Amino acid sequence: MVPEMNFSDILSGGQQELRRGTVVLACLLLLREPGYGYALLEELRDLGFAVDANTLYPLLRRLEGQGTLVSEWNTQEARPRKFYRISPGGERLADELLADWKRLDASIRRLGQGGQEP
Amino acid sequence: MVPEMNFSDILSGGQQELRRGTVVLACLLLLREPGYGYALLEELRDLGFAVDANTLYPLLRRLEGQGTLVSEWNTQEARPRKFYRISPGGERLADELLADWKRLDASIRRLGQGGQEP
Repeated sequence: MVPEMNFSDILSGGQQELRRGTVVLACLLLLREPGYGYALLEELRDLGFAVDANTLYPLLRRLEGQGTLVSEWNTQEARPRKFYRISPGGERLADELLADWKRLDASIRRLGQGGQEP
Repeated sequence: MVPEMNFSDILSGGQQELRRGTVVLACLLLLREPGYGYALLEELRDLGFAVDANTLYPLLRRLEGQGTLVSEWNTQEARPRKFYRISPGGERLADELLADWKRLDASIRRLGQGGQEP
């Protein structure tokens, strides 16, 4: 039995684990349109991928280091901002991860429906 | 550009991240029918949740410690085995995580379709 006082901690831990793996894929897909860090953070939150700046900014640098994102400074506005966008290699990665996601989803949903079976 | 020789490493890292978060949910859903560790490992692999024994066995003990799984020894066979099954608290956790999964899936698929938009 789960003590009532701990259930929300257990749940939020499980939810974080589910989301963590999806943030890379969500970033790659969002950055098919160029975007800068803060705007991306807001978009991810609106979509339900709770992520904070301390996680997202290093992740963007890591993806750029891998070559799946490229960046460029936009200096035409009052405040220069670093814009990221997906690279051709990143497109390929996103396609593969999306296919993998769909396979996982099919398995999870099959299991989710299986509760009443003998 | 992603150097060709690294792409498979980058991809397999991303796939592992996607799967890691789903293993708890998959275990809970599978253990609506009582099962023991090794059989569960095989079922998870068949479903595409690549997980190894060194990850799964501690996870089962952690879930039992949380109270989301319960266990009992089956000593009626030649070789005694510890059978796990989901608890009422685990059912509740699985329901919530499944709902969360479906929300994430809706967001990911919306993003995945958005490639051609302006």
